[in-house]
Amino acid sequence: MSDSSTSKTAKVIFLPSGRRGEVPLGQTLLDAARQLGEPIESICGGHGACGKCQVVIQAGSFPKLGISSSLDHVTPPTPQEATWLQGHQIEEGALRLACHARVLGDVVAFVPEYARTHQQVIRKDATDRVIEVKPAIRQVYVELTPPSLADRRSDWERLRDGLASQWGLAHLDIAYPALLALPQALREGAWKVTVVLWQDARVLAVRPGYQEGIWGLAVDIGSTTMVAHLCDLQTGERLATQAAMNPQVRYGEDLMSRISFAAQPDGLVKLHRAIIGAFNRLAAQTAAAAGLTSTAIHEAVVVGNPTMMSLFLNLDPKSLGEEPFVMAHREAMDLPARELKLRLHPAAQLHLLPAVAGHVGADHVAALLAEALHEREQVTLLVDVGTNAEIALWNGERIFNASSPTGPAFEGAQIRHGMRAAPGAIERVRIDPETLAVRFKVIGEERWSDAWSPEAPPAVLPTGICGSGIIEAVAEGFLAGLILPDGRFHPDLEHPRLVWEGKKGAFVLATAEETGTGAPILITQDDVRAIQLAKAALYAGSRLLMAEAGVDRVERIILAGAFGSYIDPFHALVLGMIPDAPLEQIRAVGNAAGDGALMALLNREQRALAQTLAQSCHYVETATHPGFQDAFVAAIPIPHAHDAFPHIADRLPAQVSLRPRERRRVRGRRKA
Amino acid sequence: MSDSSTSKTAKVIFLPSGRRGEVPLGQTLLDAARQLGEPIESICGGHGACGKCQVVIQAGSFPKLGISSSLDHVTPPTPQEATWLQGHQIEEGALRLACHARVLGDVVAFVPEYARTHQQVIRKDATDRVIEVKPAIRQVYVELTPPSLADRRSDWERLRDGLASQWGLAHLDIAYPALLALPQALREGAWKVTVVLWQDARVLAVRPGYQEGIWGLAVDIGSTTMVAHLCDLQTGERLATQAAMNPQVRYGEDLMSRISFAAQPDGLVKLHRAIIGAFNRLAAQTAAAAGLTSTAIHEAVVVGNPTMMSLFLNLDPKSLGEEPFVMAHREAMDLPARELKLRLHPAAQLHLLPAVAGHVGADHVAALLAEALHEREQVTLLVDVGTNAEIALWNGERIFNASSPTGPAFEGAQIRHGMRAAPGAIERVRIDPETLAVRFKVIGEERWSDAWSPEAPPAVLPTGICGSGIIEAVAEGFLAGLILPDGRFHPDLEHPRLVWEGKKGAFVLATAEETGTGAPILITQDDVRAIQLAKAALYAGSRLLMAEAGVDRVERIILAGAFGSYIDPFHALVLGMIPDAPLEQIRAVGNAAGDGALMALLNREQRALAQTLAQSCHYVETATHPGFQDAFVAAIPIPHAHDAFPHIADRLPAQVSLRPRERRRVRGRRKA
Repeated sequence: MSDSSTSKTAKVIFLPSGRRGEVPLGQTLLDAARQLGEPIESICGGHGACGKCQVVIQAGSFPKLGISSSLDHVTPPTPQEATWLQGHQIEEGALRLACHARVLGDVVAFVPEYARTHQQVIRKDATDRVIEVKPAIRQVYVELTPPSLADRRSDWERLRDGLASQWGLAHLDIAYPALLALPQALREGAWKVTVVLWQDARVLAVRPGYQEGIWGLAVDIGSTTMVAHLCDLQTGERLATQAAMNPQVRYGEDLMSRISFAAQPDGLVKLHRAIIGAFNRLAAQTAAAAGLTSTAIHEAVVVGNPTMMSLFLNLDPKSLGEEPFVMAHREAMDLPARELKLRLHPAAQLHLLPAVAGHVGADHVAALLAEALHEREQVTLLVDVGTNAEIALWNGERIFNASSPTGPAFEGAQIRHGMRAAPGAIERVRIDPETLAVRFKVIGEERWSDAWSPEAPPAVLPTGICGSGIIEAVAEGFLAGLILPDGRFHPDLEHPRLVWEGKKGAFVLATAEETGTGAPILITQDDVRAIQLAKAALYAGSRLLMAEAGVDRVERIILAGAFGSYIDPFHALVLGMIPDAPLEQIRAVGNAAGDGALMALLNREQRALAQTLAQSCHYVETATHPGFQDAFVAAIPIPHAHDAFPHIADRLPAQVSLRPRERRRVRGRRKA
Repeated sequence: MSDSSTSKTAKVIFLPSGRRGEVPLGQTLLDAARQLGEPIESICGGHGACGKCQVVIQAGSFPKLGISSSLDHVTPPTPQEATWLQGHQIEEGALRLACHARVLGDVVAFVPEYARTHQQVIRKDATDRVIEVKPAIRQVYVELTPPSLADRRSDWERLRDGLASQWGLAHLDIAYPALLALPQALREGAWKVTVVLWQDARVLAVRPGYQEGIWGLAVDIGSTTMVAHLCDLQTGERLATQAAMNPQVRYGEDLMSRISFAAQPDGLVKLHRAIIGAFNRLAAQTAAAAGLTSTAIHEAVVVGNPTMMSLFLNLDPKSLGEEPFVMAHREAMDLPARELKLRLHPAAQLHLLPAVAGHVGADHVAALLAEALHEREQVTLLVDVGTNAEIALWNGERIFNASSPTGPAFEGAQIRHGMRAAPGAIERVRIDPETLAVRFKVIGEERWSDAWSPEAPPAVLPTGICGSGIIEAVAEGFLAGLILPDGRFHPDLEHPRLVWEGKKGAFVLATAEETGTGAPILITQDDVRAIQLAKAALYAGSRLLMAEAGVDRVERIILAGAFGSYIDPFHALVLGMIPDAPLEQIRAVGNAAGDGALMALLNREQRALAQTLAQSCHYVETATHPGFQDAFVAAIPIPHAHDAFPHIADRLPAQVSLRPRERRRVRGRRKA
């Protein structure tokens, strides 16, 4: 008890936070927590319906805290409380609902982690960032007085008044589908309902009685691949992740071909329907994986490049294909999901993250969010490699960004034996610089090819080569002296694996006997050229941003995008895809755009941050920048690694040099 | 010129308003008008695109105004202006566009009626009220700078910025369908567009270049009949009016039977689709009648009783059929018309007027608007007779209202030979009190039946009797002594037209030879009872409101509703349908609900007024009011007109009395 027995207040201390203060006797512990700023979860607002506000009363003397607490310093459990606590008792009488236990004397109350609001979720697969769970969607429980002849308020007026008086919510509106469900929900729940709110501004759903469960979907629409994450918006838990091909690829591999297709009769509507269909399938699949239906999803956050977002919205992308590459809508957008016929909850909301410019879209902004570039202490380059590469550079003060037209070579397209990163694709390559012997790894088989044998054949035979395989093949070819700095196959080298088609060389990566197709898998001269052009675009874009940002070196490089995860930083540096940086400071973070969408789904403050980031970026248009063409041309050769890339110099084999021909033993005959 | 030749200002006087003031030299007359508060129409905002801001410069000396005006006191017409004015010249040089003509000296400018903003439309068919045209929809013209590499704002940002800088519009959003059309409209119009705005808050449409024309639809959804008015929202002109049957009648004649039907499987969706289909047909028909398509309609205002509004919104009306008769949504509502799949402009808005209570809906509030009850100086009763009767009483301070369950008898339903007011229906009846000879008028034929002859047969033969016909038949029967005050047919009267079915009499209104069906048209005892119950409900409801409002007489009675227009006030008083009032103060105003919807469409301030009226009404629930049943029972007899209805006493035939039998010569034989 406090000092005086006549005192009208008592001390309350919450653990583990240590928040403390004097509260009036008779106050509930939930009100005490609110008074003292202790965040305790409560969905039902003190009606004893949700059982969220559990606290454990500590009994005993706490000399350090200067308090003596006891189980009987709070009122005994009410029958309603007892129902909730049945089977949950840690210690007789200790576990209580804070909304029911009233303070009779000094109390120390421990708040279990699950009873604290704004639980935190940790993203383990990327940069281990901690996100507070503060979604745009929340649910509250209200108990209303039934209508009578003396109280003829409409159902909506009654609910709105209840939300105002019990939760302090003002200026609410109600989504039309929620209004349709309102009369039945109120009566089924005997005027006690759980309300799903969006941004504390709009009622999205009304469910009879006390009900828990709100879910959201974060979707990254890539030109090639779509990824969806389903989340529990109460706990922040990621329940399911599904990926799918973007079905638009049948109408065009890259962005420009889709923009062209959209201009054909019915082209736009075909592209739009394809993406909506795929979205709906992903929503259904992720929901099913979590034991739900997609109608349980109350909000979706969607990111994608400007063309994908345009097609998703059924907006003609024509202006994105023409200088000055203007978008129809650039800022963040909220709209009812039913406007797009998305099969989610009938009143679900859709949030689209903002874009920076016609080539740097919401997916890039999401990646900036996920990687928190603006919080970094190092000069950091973020490279999201896809059909286009989006590049951002943080110089400690500002984010500079650009899009670089790498083309589809990095994704295995427009490569003779290129294929997507699917089972059967060669994804890693090593070439012995002495013997030119090749070993490779295929997606779908754990062992490298030199460990295969007739007795232990691979699970899948190679049928092509994917982007990361091409990059390694060209880099390894260069390291082995097969490929010259200018990209030509060494004209004087004779080797069974080096074949000539007219004046153009080609390297046999896998022989006809080794493949699943019965034909050899080659890296052709044109393939090398395509990779050179792609890496030159990427490198030139990066250097352009460095020049704009006034930095001559980057301290950290983040490779984002599914493809970025498979790029070996060493080979990327050998090729000169990215500026030099310490190898250990080059990290692949996977689908950062999807992660950023997830963060915006879980935390509405991240949406405001996204808008700020998008508006404060300094965008550099490579397509028209006077310095870009020169930088691009200069970046086409495979650089003398020792000069431009000091960080990998010591990892290069001794015999690698600018002119390998002159220093290497040539094992085959000279070309006739 | 002003006094001093060095003066930097000049006098400008606008006629006919007389607004005057000093304006800087070089200012346009449009800016001068704005400065002086003269309302001149301008859609293009001074771009010279709309040609609306026409003024006629007056030349000459105006001693009374203390000014001397001249055509050369304004700058000469620009080439752009000349294009507009071609063919419009009243007098060489006099007609000018105010946005182009700049003040060089003192000017008197006449503003023609068509160039004044807020034109007024006068409703001629009702109470001759004057409505300012201030719709929720307006159009503005903007000229934008095209995008460039230096100006990469998105299409929407560009438009929004232009609307802000050129029209001072802030916090705009854009409807999703308008966004879809935006890129093409901007480019087709070479970055000059006309924008359709809703409430100066939302962009509903963007059209290339300068385009005029915005239209709106006002719809009254009655249980039986729907009426739609198509209006030009620029001029306020009513372009077309169409009526249609409410197709829901196939699912139930009255409100209760539709509420019951809605509870059946698929019942609600059938009723909803029926009304949406009918709405869409009416929209298409009215638009076609005006040479438009329904996609030209940018806003619709809809009124109806609570059950109709509920079914229109696809809301379960169940609670409207059960005490305490609570609505799901009572207040005014704005929602995109596409939520209901209305076939209007893709981004059209829908405005629903508010209701008072479960039985007094938006149609009644619209009628209050149309009749401006709150502005009356007399104690006024407004009676809207339909399947239910809505009654409002203005006592000079407040509006009291109630709904009275008259049932469908007044509409010809549940009457043996009852029919709707359609061709072939007997709508007026006269019975000679001496001979009991009957003459009647049939809808579809101008002449009364006593003027028909084999040589000049009627255009249509009678096939039944509609509500107004029934009322007149019963009232005339009473006046002729055929029907006793208690509603029985005179038991001692014998006449070929009075036939007996057991103990129940029936009166032959039309013989088998006279009808189109070959069977006689009778008024049966049960028909008389049904009319008695209906009129008793109406009268009791009116008296109840008079008691609540503390008045013992009404000075004016307004009969609203299509049916009300056909009721003869004299016969209504004879029957005791309505309280006594001077006959000349009883007026039928037709479809007041539709007129009120039209007013709310044309003037957004009327919407705010509707909300105020709905909230400030004192609603009396007849169904549960302790005094209603007694008043109802007391009102069942046909009253002694001389006592209760002094205003018609002198118009009654001398021989009419409480007991006609005793004073009349009985021409037929006594009953056997």
